Order: sequence, then structure tokens, then C-alpha cells
Amino acid sequence: MAAPHQRLLILTDGSLGVFDSKTATCLLRYRPGDVVGVLDRGHAGKTAADVLGVPSHAPIVATMEEGLALRPDALVIGIAPPGGALPAHWRAMISQALERGVSVLSGLHVFLADDPGYAALAEISGASIVDYRRPPEGQPIAHRDALKTRARRVLTVGTDCNIGKMVAAVELDKSARGRGLSSRFLATGQTGMLISGSGLTLDRIPGDFMAGFIEQMVVENGDADLVIVEGQGCILHPAFSGVTMALLHGSLPDAMILVHHAARQIMRSQTLSLPPLADWVRRYEDAVAPLHPGKVTGIAINPYGLTEAEASDALRRAEDETGLPAVDVVKDGADRLLEGVLN
Amino acid sequence: MAAPHQRLLILTDGSLGVFDSKTATCLLRYRPGDVVGVLDRGHAGKTAADVLGVPSHAPIVATMEEGLALRPDALVIGIAPPGGALPAHWRAMISQALERGVSVLSGLHVFLADDPGYAALAEISGASIVDYRRPPEGQPIAHRDALKTRARRVLTVGTDCNIGKMVAAVELDKSARGRGLSSRFLATGQTGMLISGSGLTLDRIPGDFMAGFIEQMVVENGDADLVIVEGQGCILHPAFSGVTMALLHGSLPDAMILVHHAARQIMRSQTLSLPPLADWVRRYEDAVAPLHPGKVTGIAINPYGLTEAEASDALRRAEDETGLPAVDVVKDGADRLLEGVLN
Repeated sequence: MAAPHQRLLILTDGSLGVFDSKTATCLLRYRPGDVVGVLDRGHAGKTAADVLGVPSHAPIVATMEEGLALRPDALVIGIAPPGGALPAHWRAMISQALERGVSVLSGLHVFLADDPGYAALAEISGASIVDYRRPPEGQPIAHRDALKTRARRVLTVGTDCNIGKMVAAVELDKSARGRGLSSRFLATGQTGMLISGSGLTLDRIPGDFMAGFIEQMVVENGDADLVIVEGQGCILHPAFSGVTMALLHGSLPDAMILVHHAARQIMRSQTLSLPPLADWVRRYEDAVAPLHPGKVTGIAINPYGLTEAEASDALRRAEDETGLPAVDVVKDGADRLLEGVLN
Repeated sequence: MAAPHQRLLILTDGSLGVFDSKTATCLLRYRPGDVVGVLDRGHAGKTAADVLGVPSHAPIVATMEEGLALRPDALVIGIAPPGGALPAHWRAMISQALERGVSVLSGLHVFLADDPGYAALAEISGASIVDYRRPPEGQPIAHRDALKTRARRVLTVGTDCNIGKMVAAVELDKSARGRGLSSRFLATGQTGMLISGSGLTLDRIPGDFMAGFIEQMVVENGDADLVIVEGQGCILHPAFSGVTMALLHGSLPDAMILVHHAARQIMRSQTLSLPPLADWVRRYEDAVAPLHPGKVTGIAINPYGLTEAEASDALRRAEDETGLPAVDVVKDGADRLLEGVLN
């Protein structure tokens, strides 16, 4: 997982430590050595470790001037702006970075490279602007070609959106590498791309080509021992089930890890009660069965919002309900899940 | 189903009567009074009825000059160019139409209105260029709002792509109107849009917003007695299952009609054997069940490639296997299917 930029300054602008500052938190957790600082007025003077408990002592600074003094090679847009439009003071900060030759990495829906002002600044200073959400070129149609890979194929799936499917995939990749296996984490969202330096953001790809792009990426990495595809959405989410289905049929996993946020009874931003875990297992296996007999081989429990006792209880119940190993991967790593994936 | 253009000249360029000239065939079948001619060198001198057995006596002509003499108000691009790029002689024909003030209606992947040459000709003559595949504006997220419609919601689903889901929906709409119900056929592909004059083409919409756009369209038409949504893809098609899932969860149908091409044993352009009909029924119902208890209420059998005896046999077998009414809607209309939809 080598990325072209290795001195990152993360812009979080006051939202650090909030549940939704996922991009910042994940970068600090999985690329701690590559983050030189965080730009966040709310916590200036502390370190990332102080605020988030992540293994990074990157300083938190209040101004772009202080941030640039840390000699970053890239500014990462670490949060989504409220409402979608870029606040004016972000515009000034992004321009300031580009003027000084610092590249800008963005997963925003709006493409920064298409802004003539930014483009001109980047042109002059030699900085680059990377928009992770820009759809790749081409119109590939999936044909079950994923079945031809040498690699064992793994996909993380979930009982909702935004519950840790990316984290489970990254942890599984880490466990596999720790065992000496050649493993590839294949990112399908902007945070995963920031962590791994490659991949694609599925949510901007037209419906007909989603599975085809996933298949293409899996096949290109099929010479490894393991490919671990970052899941998206959820097979029962009214808005995002289409993306999930494309991931299932594009990657045709041998093994799936079911990710569940134990404190959640109701689907986020929906009024839908969640079915029992065993039903999720059946659903995901049934969705791929006629194309490939993939199995759910383990459960990743996200304990956010639970006490330690409640979390232990949730893990035990998940194992009882499904007969599969259940793990808090952030706390305990994914070694136990890897066992199931490899057998 | 009123469309703004009502004197259509269809360009099929030698492919009329081939299975894939679906757009031309469907327009001739469902808007016979609105087609003034067909431009197809291969069958010049005959009529549409002669070649396709459709209820249209539109003349088939060999040249654009003859076509324009029929005083069309729009040229419909009735086939997809082989390989995706526009052949040079089409370019000349399209330009000739636009010069003479004849609008151009296209469902091609390439957007004709973005071509400066065509745009300039249209500007001068006052003709319009309609690209049905252009994605609509907005980024709607589905929230199960379809459940709020007064209308009973119907979706056609299938055992493969390109087997008659649009035809089944149009026939059902016709049956409902024949009964005096207010019914809306909601197109989700370019041929359906050409027939109805509205709708959207789902296959170019980014994954995250597919279900949202369907929901929006269903809600906008929710004051009718019946909304009948044109299905796309197939829940087990490796490339297009994502689109199908988005349709299921965006429209949350009360009733589904399962469309099956009886002569097909293997999924088109795939090497996948088709499961039995009863398994398809179970799959489609299971996919929506936790969000809404929609049921498959009938089977539409496409008898293409079968003898009359084989077709009768296929209908009988479908009824035996599923316990549901099975109908050849092109031959017998959809009245029997409507019964199941309304109960």
C-alpha cells in the first residue's frame, strides 16, 4: 500500500473527533507515519493521539500557515462540507496550499481540478490536484471474469452503511501481510483510496458499469494470494443496495466478512428495523450463490457506543446467532477472521 | 402517453427485422399512428406491417430525401451503431434532418446535442436534439418514500436482460387504461421514453442515485390508480443486477410481473444456467420483503424462437411451476396479468 504523497496535512476544520471525520481518523490510524499534521481550530495545540487515541503524534494546528510550516507534500480534504458547497475559507486554504506547491487530495463530490482558479495555481507551482471521486474511463461490462483469479477473493459486506466495512478490509489485509501472504486491499471509496493510494470510488460510476469496474480491478490484482475488496452500502439499504449488488457480482467473493454496528437497531437515516444476523448471512450468500458459492466466514462487530461489557456480550451473541467467529477488529485485529477466510 | 413529436421517421439503416431493432419495432407497435416512415435500404418499397407484422403501414424508404418528403417532425435513431461510434453516413443523414428543421431523438450513449456541428444546425433551423440517455440533474437518495403513493405500484422483473420487460409494462398499462383505470407507464430506458415521451434512462445514472431517481418518479406519479415501472436488467445478471436492485428498492412494488424468455436456457452473453421460475419468484420477493411485502403476481412469457405448440407448453409449464397466471402479452394482451396485480 504505497501512495505517491507521504507527508500529509489533513484539513478537518473543527470536526475532528466527530464520528463522521472518518477520512481523517482512518488516515491517522492506517498511515500514521505519513501524516505530518492536522489543521483543526477546535483542537489546536494537542496531537492526534490526544484527541482520537490513534497511533499518530501528528500536531494539530490552527492555521494554514502553521500547517505549511510542517512541510506537507499534500493537503487532504478530511471532511465533507456541510450542504455540499465549499465554504469560502476552505477556498482560501486550498489556494494557499496549491500556491506553495502542496498537492490537494480530495474525495468531495465537486471536482477541484475542474476549477480554473485551482488548476491555474497548480499549473504554476507544479502541485497536483487529485479528485478521488472522478469516475474512471471506460464502460466495462461484468462477465464473471473474477472467477479466473488465482487470488482468493474476499468482500466485506454489512448490515448498514457507514459501519466499518473499510476498516474490516484494511485490518484483514494487515493480518494477511503479517502472515507473509501477498494481499491487496482494493479500495472502492475515497477514504480507502487515500489509505491505499489506488482503487476507485464506486458511487459515481453509472449503474451499468459498476460491476464491470470492480471485476476489472479484481482481475488486475488476481495474481496475489488474497484480494480484499472494500464493501459499500448494504443489500437492504433502499438507496445503496444497487451498489452493494454490483460489488457482490463484480467481485464474486469466495469469502465475505459481515460487518455489524452492534448498537444499531434501525438502519441509519431510514426507519427500517434490522433483521437478525443469521438472515443477513443467508441473504448475502443467496445473492451470489447461482454465480459462485461464496460464504460468509466471519463477523466484524463495530462496538461504537457500547460499554466494554456490552461489546463482549455483542460479540458472544453474534457467534451464537451465526456459528461464525465474531471479532472487534480495531481492538483485536483480524487474525481470527483470516482463519475463516483462508479455509 | 403523449409525446411532443408525433410524425416520426425511424432510422434503422438496414437492421430492420433483426431481433435487436427493439426501438424501431416497439415504436411501430405502440405508436403506429405516429410513425410516418422508416429509413432502411434493406426493405425499401415495403411497409412496416410487411416486414414486422406490426399494426403500422408506414412506408419504408431508402434515402433521407424520400424520408423528409414524408414531412416528419422528428428523426428517431432506431438502432445502436455497431461498436458505439457513429458511422459517417449517419452523420450526413442527421445533419440533413436538422438542417430541414426536423428534430433528432436519440438513445445513443454518445450525446448528439454535445456535438457543436449538430448544435449549430439545430440552432439555425429551430429543431431540437433530445438525448434520452442524458442523466437527469440532482443527487436524490431513496428513503422508501415510494410507500406513500396512493397508486398501486407495479414493476416488471426478469430472468435475463432484453427479454420484454418494457413490452410487458406497456401492455399492462394498456390493459389498465382499457379498464378505465388511471395508469402511468414509467419508462426507465430510451425505448420506453420514446414510447411514452417521458421517464429516465437508468443506465447512465451514478450508482448512489439510481434508487433515488426511481423513487422520485414514482412519487411524482403516485396520484394515479396504478404506476407501472419498466424493469431493467436481472437480479442475477453479473453486470446489471445493481440496476435491478435499485429499481426494486426505489419503486418498492406491490406487485411484480416476472418476464421470461422461454427458449433461453442460459443467460444472454453469460455462461450462467437459469434457475427454475419458482426460484426467481422467491428471489424477487425476498429482495424487497424487509422493506415492503411485494409479491410476484404473474408471469409474462416471451415466446420468441418457439413454435406455437412449444409456446403453449411453455405457458402451461410456467403456471404449473409457479401457481401464477402466465401470458404471452404480445399475442393475448395483459388482462389476465392485471387481475393479479389488482388483487
